[in-house]
Amino acid sequence: MKHILIVVFLFTTVQFSAQTDAENLKKIYSNSLTNGMSYQWLDHLSNQIGGRLSGSLNAEKAVQYTKEELEKLGLDKVWLQPVMVPRWVRGAPEFAYFETSPGVTTNVNICALGGSVATPTGGIKAKIIEVGSYTELKALGEDKIKGKIVFINRPMQADLINTFEAYGGCSVERYAGAAEAAKYGAVGTIVRSLNLRLDDYPHTGSMGYGDLPNSKRIPSAAISTNDAELLSGMIALNKNLNFFFSQNCKQLADVQSYNVIGEITGSEFPNEIIVVGGHLDSWDLGDGSHDDGAGVVQSMDVLRLLKESGIRPKRTIRAVLFMNEENGLRGGKKYAEVAKSKNEKHVFALESDSGGFSPRGFSFQCSEAMLAKIQSWRSLFKPYLIHSFEAGYSGADIGPLKDDNIVLAGLRPDSQRYFDHHHAANDTFEHVNKRELELGAASMTALVYLMDTYGTETISNEVELRD
Amino acid sequence: MKHILIVVFLFTTVQFSAQTDAENLKKIYSNSLTNGMSYQWLDHLSNQIGGRLSGSLNAEKAVQYTKEELEKLGLDKVWLQPVMVPRWVRGAPEFAYFETSPGVTTNVNICALGGSVATPTGGIKAKIIEVGSYTELKALGEDKIKGKIVFINRPMQADLINTFEAYGGCSVERYAGAAEAAKYGAVGTIVRSLNLRLDDYPHTGSMGYGDLPNSKRIPSAAISTNDAELLSGMIALNKNLNFFFSQNCKQLADVQSYNVIGEITGSEFPNEIIVVGGHLDSWDLGDGSHDDGAGVVQSMDVLRLLKESGIRPKRTIRAVLFMNEENGLRGGKKYAEVAKSKNEKHVFALESDSGGFSPRGFSFQCSEAMLAKIQSWRSLFKPYLIHSFEAGYSGADIGPLKDDNIVLAGLRPDSQRYFDHHHAANDTFEHVNKRELELGAASMTALVYLMDTYGTETISNEVELRD
Repeated sequence: MKHILIVVFLFTTVQFSAQTDAENLKKIYSNSLTNGMSYQWLDHLSNQIGGRLSGSLNAEKAVQYTKEELEKLGLDKVWLQPVMVPRWVRGAPEFAYFETSPGVTTNVNICALGGSVATPTGGIKAKIIEVGSYTELKALGEDKIKGKIVFINRPMQADLINTFEAYGGCSVERYAGAAEAAKYGAVGTIVRSLNLRLDDYPHTGSMGYGDLPNSKRIPSAAISTNDAELLSGMIALNKNLNFFFSQNCKQLADVQSYNVIGEITGSEFPNEIIVVGGHLDSWDLGDGSHDDGAGVVQSMDVLRLLKESGIRPKRTIRAVLFMNEENGLRGGKKYAEVAKSKNEKHVFALESDSGGFSPRGFSFQCSEAMLAKIQSWRSLFKPYLIHSFEAGYSGADIGPLKDDNIVLAGLRPDSQRYFDHHHAANDTFEHVNKRELELGAASMTALVYLMDTYGTETISNEVELRD
Repeated sequence: MKHILIVVFLFTTVQFSAQTDAENLKKIYSNSLTNGMSYQWLDHLSNQIGGRLSGSLNAEKAVQYTKEELEKLGLDKVWLQPVMVPRWVRGAPEFAYFETSPGVTTNVNICALGGSVATPTGGIKAKIIEVGSYTELKALGEDKIKGKIVFINRPMQADLINTFEAYGGCSVERYAGAAEAAKYGAVGTIVRSLNLRLDDYPHTGSMGYGDLPNSKRIPSAAISTNDAELLSGMIALNKNLNFFFSQNCKQLADVQSYNVIGEITGSEFPNEIIVVGGHLDSWDLGDGSHDDGAGVVQSMDVLRLLKESGIRPKRTIRAVLFMNEENGLRGGKKYAEVAKSKNEKHVFALESDSGGFSPRGFSFQCSEAMLAKIQSWRSLFKPYLIHSFEAGYSGADIGPLKDDNIVLAGLRPDSQRYFDHHHAANDTFEHVNKRELELGAASMTALVYLMDTYGTETISNEVELRD
């Protein structure tokens, strides 16, 4: 009986408003594709500011720029939320080579991993040993590793359709490889870049030492996939290969930074808050266009597109541009902490942090009943080729908001090209297509509009209350 | 009653084989993503051969190369099908400028449209008049146009989600604008490039003069979108603006060329033929990677992927690499003509000619019952994010095969980026992502596998026969 009630109720609701909803979605998409601001904002963030590592001058420029742009939109409120962030700096360019015989060297492309310590001044040279994975590293033990540089060469799994799954499968190697190798007396680690294609770009990303004391910490760098293949081939030929690398990175004291927040206050339920966000910081090698300039400008455009489409939301809609997702998540944690301290009721949060590619759908952390409710909107999205509404990961910055009531979601763009650019020098503006970016902004706006219109109460709850 | 029968029958069939089908699709996709040949073949076609305009030396190199590569696959049969093709050559680079006052000129980026005549030696200079569309051009009449160059400035419509619809909306301007303008005494036409973004690349493409006598034909060129905007702005300031352009293109005598065909002969129904194809020729400005090197290598890989996945098709599967899609369709017409003369029974043809981007689905020219049968395979494609199975256009080269019995289909990749590159100097290999290309090849193979397994007979026919 419950099931029948649910179906009938859903059906009636959907039929009732389908016409208006369809028209509003059309307005949102048309506005984004003909009159969107995302691309222009991203051009500024990427080409006038550039890479925005937490604590850097560029990150602060980005805070000021996005605040000013939000202020131009005529929102109800725009503010900066202070947060202390770590400040890691790369220093002078890294340098690395392998030595096939004394003095005969071949340079390879590396970059320090974010959070790594520097090599000793003048660099470090040692025998290099290759392992295929973190598990293999743990099995080798001190005998084989002590005094050596460990090369962790785990390629991303190519036959996974969702490339984020392939990324997840290799991330422990990058994050924890150095700490593990250090336990067995290694003097450094070189990790294969998390990139599905073969090219010359090293890809940075965060690593950590856990509770390893400072004195035991060893430097860790990523090597390009082409050079990982080359190095692996050379090691196969010569088990006593020497490897040299130098890097000059450093962890400085924390500095003051900000989350940037803009708000349209709800007309009916101002105390129910919907968050849409991306992260303002990026790695330093590229200009952070896909990761996550795209999510930032799309989130800003959600507010603008609602206004331009003449939609006055019932609930409060906030665009939150989080600081320090990449190496600390301080912005996401601070936002949740402040929300909790103020007893704010967050009902929905949507993050875009998977690149500015053609949107395919969303993934959700919510109840089955809520997912079913969202899936009942599927036909509204069909004209825009948005087809995937599945349970799954939402986003790092909104994660700290998780409780039993909030619905969390992530925009899911096509993932095939993302890791060609992720955390590398070629994460740059020319690799973003204007229309793909705008379709993402429109899709986020459409979902926010529907969540605001229909709320996050689910039919099954209501039916249960009546039981 | 009929409807119930259909549903039950479909359900049983799908359940029965779903396990094997799912396993075979997994093999096909995994093989393509880990061991595909598409990208390597495209690298050769694009970077070792290059643009392949019909009748050019490069087109003949491409015929030889693809024939040799197909021969390496151990197919049952590989052959060349002779076809006479037109040979249009661009000649020396085009040159154009507008003149704001005598001797004060600004250069703009143009390219001759395929099939256009040259300007008189030394170029042509005349007053330029802007129209917004073909319809507007027809309305202006001889008074306003005679002796002038007509600038047809119709932007593609940005709020259409499927960019091919936006392309279709402006194609008469490019194809027929010159013939129409010539009727009113214009001396040349400049057409806005069919490109959704603003950049400096002029985009070529075919145009025709219909039955206009040679003496009346006027030269026609495309102008980059950036320069179309600039020119339009200058015309608004100065109604008497002079425009100069020179182009040296020429239509030569037809030459001998070939369709390239490879075949796996069917094990049960060798006389039922399934065609999978793309076109081997391209325009000359870029290397034709997306249009249609992608379709060529994907079609070749369909045969290889079937073999590698241990699938022995019941029906005959042919990869047909058509010559001369761009400016004549002679290859497509020849293939259909030969098929008809031999009384060959073609049951299904699938074309890939929309770029090597992430596949989203297929569009079909077939009966409703057949479309319903295909849509019953939807869940098999879901893990690969292939979601769109709709009635619609198939492809130019397979069009001439159309009759009452054949099912025609087109691969539908994500269309957002296609017209950034289409027919322009930046249709090049570096804009193709290996995984996107491979997913397309796998999706085509999967559909061919299912069509071969379940045939193109439809349940409703069977039910009707029993009535």
